[in-house]
Amino acid sequence: MKTLTVALGERSYPIYIGNQLLTNPQLISPHIPGQQVLIVTNVTVGPLYLDKVQTSLHTFEVQSLQLPDGEQYKNLDTLNLIYDKLLSSRFDRQCTLVALGGGVVGDITGFAAATYQRGVHFVQIPTTLLAQVDSSVGGKTGVNHALGKNMIGAFYQPRCVIADTDTLNTLDDQQLSAGIAEVIKYGLIGDAEFYQWLEHNMERLIHRDAHALAYAIERSCQDKAEVVAADEKESGVRALLNLGHTFGHAIEAAMGYGSWLHGEAVATGMLMAADLSQRCGWISQEEVQRLEKLLLQARLPVRAPQQLTAEKFLEIMAVDKKVKQGRINLVLLKEIGKAVMSGDYDPALLRATLEQHPKQPLMSGA
Amino acid sequence: MKTLTVALGERSYPIYIGNQLLTNPQLISPHIPGQQVLIVTNVTVGPLYLDKVQTSLHTFEVQSLQLPDGEQYKNLDTLNLIYDKLLSSRFDRQCTLVALGGGVVGDITGFAAATYQRGVHFVQIPTTLLAQVDSSVGGKTGVNHALGKNMIGAFYQPRCVIADTDTLNTLDDQQLSAGIAEVIKYGLIGDAEFYQWLEHNMERLIHRDAHALAYAIERSCQDKAEVVAADEKESGVRALLNLGHTFGHAIEAAMGYGSWLHGEAVATGMLMAADLSQRCGWISQEEVQRLEKLLLQARLPVRAPQQLTAEKFLEIMAVDKKVKQGRINLVLLKEIGKAVMSGDYDPALLRATLEQHPKQPLMSGA
Repeated sequence: MKTLTVALGERSYPIYIGNQLLTNPQLISPHIPGQQVLIVTNVTVGPLYLDKVQTSLHTFEVQSLQLPDGEQYKNLDTLNLIYDKLLSSRFDRQCTLVALGGGVVGDITGFAAATYQRGVHFVQIPTTLLAQVDSSVGGKTGVNHALGKNMIGAFYQPRCVIADTDTLNTLDDQQLSAGIAEVIKYGLIGDAEFYQWLEHNMERLIHRDAHALAYAIERSCQDKAEVVAADEKESGVRALLNLGHTFGHAIEAAMGYGSWLHGEAVATGMLMAADLSQRCGWISQEEVQRLEKLLLQARLPVRAPQQLTAEKFLEIMAVDKKVKQGRINLVLLKEIGKAVMSGDYDPALLRATLEQHPKQPLMSGA
Repeated sequence: MKTLTVALGERSYPIYIGNQLLTNPQLISPHIPGQQVLIVTNVTVGPLYLDKVQTSLHTFEVQSLQLPDGEQYKNLDTLNLIYDKLLSSRFDRQCTLVALGGGVVGDITGFAAATYQRGVHFVQIPTTLLAQVDSSVGGKTGVNHALGKNMIGAFYQPRCVIADTDTLNTLDDQQLSAGIAEVIKYGLIGDAEFYQWLEHNMERLIHRDAHALAYAIERSCQDKAEVVAADEKESGVRALLNLGHTFGHAIEAAMGYGSWLHGEAVATGMLMAADLSQRCGWISQEEVQRLEKLLLQARLPVRAPQQLTAEKFLEIMAVDKKVKQGRINLVLLKEIGKAVMSGDYDPALLRATLEQHPKQPLMSGA
């Protein structure tokens, strides 16, 4: 087992990465200060792992709640199911919420923990690759609104993150690929060495080589933990972690949440960001092609849906959180391994990316 | 104008107290960092003061939203109206929410500010005495749930509080009295000198003597600011500010939010806390009678509703936030001007207070 630390002063917490962690009561117990524990999971993950987690929490007073599965349920109505459960079970301020599942379960449970009685304890047990390398680390919690993704939320740090790599065995291929999109992101924005490693090891990841996966998770968490420690509330460098996300959120919103997986939308979004960066003259056509090749190797989509016009893209992007006083700030690439946040691009080039990217494949294909 | 400061390091902020403050653009403008401003008010306060505040914000891009008036609307549905307005108006992360109204408007707007895009700027303009002396200061924000008051929320500090005493001129007598309940609370819990001043000046307050009101607001805010600075997240001394609130919340919840005013329920709750303190042998019968006399002078109710049985009280109190691992912690009085948080009382005495207090007036009465 590896232990990383997210260094945030009195809110610092460990990330445990390894196998057979779910069944280890010694790992989770010290992070639960009270007696009452609510495990929030969903109808897909619950049947697989809820028993194990409940067993390792047998010394506590444990309740559980299984939410419906899918991004389309990441909303205020589902959040209210958690409040209902907590209140009807008379959970007090010393209770702990444990999120057992992917990013949706983690985000919504974290937001419930941030807001129940103005804040209760919170533990993350991410069971998808995407959640293990991204959403469970860093304290972003929240729900979607019909008019925008993650528009309602809070920064709220867990007391620990337990990433058990055994849970990836039950992940389907599409979910695995979606997680790899975020792994590639860490390489792209600030870790060129890791990006090269990914170019050499993508086949191993796709075929679930345990050592390769553990290394990718650890390196991703390390990259993310450093960024979060430097900028918890996203007033600066942390915003770079949104590479591909403004484009990606527009795809998710336009297609209806749950239609594209988040990681899939981010993959296409990253290639669009690379395309715009190339049009700005910052990176080469060859670097864009290298990225497209890597994404295709990871079995990720690289084209926005045909029906999503440039106008529709711009309309949705205009309500994204990355907008600063009317200007769409985007994370773009100065080189592979060096991202920048910028609103300083020719809007005509953004329009060109939005119009031409889905129609003109950059290379002849998958 | 008086300026007090809530000392919370980088989250410190001023409280301005005085007259003609709403129409002073120099006061509010420096606390609004961006361009977009949403003023949230209600259908009662809006017609009276919205124009004035909009005028003093004329250099900004201002929108407004009028919520229905009443505690029964302090819920997730009303909160969602604010999110809808913010998103449909494309408000970004640099926007500011201004709460113009009483405690309900302040609490719900503050929670919207805490959670919109994971936190935007927030200014409080309280227009009731209760909001000026209590709810607008200290960063408690939130909404009610059908199963409990203020069960969903966040600690989130405003950038400034503007308490314009002119707004009290349009407050009805019942609301004024409800505010005075919280003023009396500050005396009771930690400021015996102020309590004596209130005993000598209650008639002036009830008859809206401007100097007396300004002094009471200032002294209350000062008392509260000190407590909040010492314990922002209510892990210790801040909990004393809940004197009367656990009993009071039970009354509000049982009767339906909005049926009793919050301050009225707190008044009766404080007398019940005093009654229990007397049964514990901590304060004298005479001190309980002094308090009852003061509350009656302030035209506040001092008896819980007959239909609220001890069983019902205990059932509702058991889900209050002040419960710690099953034990109902209550704020009780060691003397007038000295409150303590305690779960260390004989449960039979609590039951005696709940059963006998509404039925046996302590003095022959108003």
